[in-house]
Amino acid sequence: MLQTISWTGSAARLLDQTKLPTETVYVDITDERQMWDAIKRLVVRGAPAIGVAAAFGVYLGVRQHADDSADRFLKRVDDVCAYLATSRPTAVNLFWALDRVRRAAHEIDGAASVGSSPPCHVVRDILDALLNEATLMLEEDNRVCRAIGEHGAKLIEGLKGATGRIDLLTHCNAGGLATVQYGTALAPIYVGKEKGLDLHVFADETRPLLQGSRITAYELKENGVPVTVICDSMAATVMSQGKVAAVIVGTDRVAANGDVANKIGTLQVAILAKHFNIPFYVAAPTSSIDMSLPSGKQIPIEERDPDEITRGLGRQTAPDDVEVYNPAFDVAPAELVTALITEKGVVRAPYDQTLRALFANPR
Amino acid sequence: MLQTISWTGSAARLLDQTKLPTETVYVDITDERQMWDAIKRLVVRGAPAIGVAAAFGVYLGVRQHADDSADRFLKRVDDVCAYLATSRPTAVNLFWALDRVRRAAHEIDGAASVGSSPPCHVVRDILDALLNEATLMLEEDNRVCRAIGEHGAKLIEGLKGATGRIDLLTHCNAGGLATVQYGTALAPIYVGKEKGLDLHVFADETRPLLQGSRITAYELKENGVPVTVICDSMAATVMSQGKVAAVIVGTDRVAANGDVANKIGTLQVAILAKHFNIPFYVAAPTSSIDMSLPSGKQIPIEERDPDEITRGLGRQTAPDDVEVYNPAFDVAPAELVTALITEKGVVRAPYDQTLRALFANPR
Repeated sequence: MLQTISWTGSAARLLDQTKLPTETVYVDITDERQMWDAIKRLVVRGAPAIGVAAAFGVYLGVRQHADDSADRFLKRVDDVCAYLATSRPTAVNLFWALDRVRRAAHEIDGAASVGSSPPCHVVRDILDALLNEATLMLEEDNRVCRAIGEHGAKLIEGLKGATGRIDLLTHCNAGGLATVQYGTALAPIYVGKEKGLDLHVFADETRPLLQGSRITAYELKENGVPVTVICDSMAATVMSQGKVAAVIVGTDRVAANGDVANKIGTLQVAILAKHFNIPFYVAAPTSSIDMSLPSGKQIPIEERDPDEITRGLGRQTAPDDVEVYNPAFDVAPAELVTALITEKGVVRAPYDQTLRALFANPR
Repeated sequence: MLQTISWTGSAARLLDQTKLPTETVYVDITDERQMWDAIKRLVVRGAPAIGVAAAFGVYLGVRQHADDSADRFLKRVDDVCAYLATSRPTAVNLFWALDRVRRAAHEIDGAASVGSSPPCHVVRDILDALLNEATLMLEEDNRVCRAIGEHGAKLIEGLKGATGRIDLLTHCNAGGLATVQYGTALAPIYVGKEKGLDLHVFADETRPLLQGSRITAYELKENGVPVTVICDSMAATVMSQGKVAAVIVGTDRVAANGDVANKIGTLQVAILAKHFNIPFYVAAPTSSIDMSLPSGKQIPIEERDPDEITRGLGRQTAPDDVEVYNPAFDVAPAELVTALITEKGVVRAPYDQTLRALFANPR
């Protein structure tokens, strides 16, 4: 399987996503400036992947300074974190990840200051803690995605028709290339494939930025899953032809009532699935479920640059100065969601109750 | 208003659609070779417009030969028709139009052979008949489109909300640029504007070939109708926000039971409209209603070149050799169609009865 991020022992190896979908090139990142550049240029993308990459970036940015005093070393950790945070100033998960490794470093120092370790040992310990924390974040991402994959694969297996083949439809990319390896929406497909299921996926191209044709189609193909690219407007047709057993998508944010915010076009797919009586599944790590949000109505819809639509693909495709509406997300109301697939298990309506129970259960 | 085709008195003036959506350039076509090239290169496009253009092309191709004998002249008419038919070998309306003008020429000759006109008068009469027939076809197209516009505008007027503004959504281009002037789906909008309605249109960009953003947005803007371009996947969002009072689209073919074949993506819009309880209107000249076709199931769905999806806009947007499904049309079943707007009036379910009645009524 494609590895979005891996640790070679001396470098963070990234699959260069700027080369997709035509070339598969890995780059070994060995210092913080290279990592800043990789995040900035979208060599690595997707909230979970960016977070893990940045965590390794902090380690890479301080590992040459093990001879510094603990104070100077910690100051350098803070500086590298602040520097990496400027690579994508709107990526919330980036700040969360940097904050997490920074705290890990300061905790070691705090523990040392009340103990008796010699200063050089403290710096070594902080360095170890930084690499450990990054590795831990990578493993956590894999564990969560893998668990979603296991739960989802069981759901999918139940859809097997007379031919044994299971045709799914997905929108955008909630795949391995947005995480370390398995992805969220695509994890059940990869795990299903491991278990020997005969799977085929329709990938909506996902205008305006074409994450479906550029990224989802690429990773499914590279990982050996048969995939067919369609335009977003063709989903209804393949559904009407009885070719879709289930829809499976990711999510940016789930509200406490089960409303799902995701890439623009998800609402449409959910409505079409309901019309054709096809299950609509949402892969939702518990980290994406926001219990402080009563409903999807509270999720503001970001509007993006009109040029993504009118000049998104190399040439101008609409008249000059035409009015454009380019919402980045939409919200599928809970009544269209057949089930949420979390790492803790599959959750169904009534979501206000089942989601509360999910978080009440420590597991 | 933009004139897709007009007759200057000595030339057929075409709006050069290859320059859209960035430039408005008219070209005067003065002979049959220029017309062949204009049809071939899509300077003029859309079934009704191509038919009218080709009819003028025949006149332009023979007008220098008024001194020929009637036999030689008629042979030249046939040759020019055969030549123009090769400009777009799949355009059925092109053959229909050429056949119609050819028959008009031969009828004059047939009438003359039983009469006593001198030969030079016969050629003059045929020449007049050719120009008359082309002009008649232009006027017929305008009359049909205008009548659809009148009937549709009345429907639309009834949707006026509290603010007085009426927001519509359309898919693909069934506009003036596919006909002589008014179009079919856009005719009610142009007539409504003349009547002082406050109209605004969401234009689906219509992947893969972007007729919505390239052509519909252009012509609405040029004709002074406020228009907002959205991706096809955003229709559900604007509908969910209560921003769409009605959907209005064109059609390639209507079956006797009211099933509607139209550009890919129309089925999806029809399902979304039903979900949000929004009227879904189809502008359908009676020439598009095929009473020999019991239902839409008998309409074969043409599949087009995968490159339209994967390389359609200047650069490659999907992996090499990925599987692609690219149907050109879909069929919206009659139960999703609120009404058909024909030049003879508005027709509603049960279509098997109302369509039969429409054709039974000679009017």
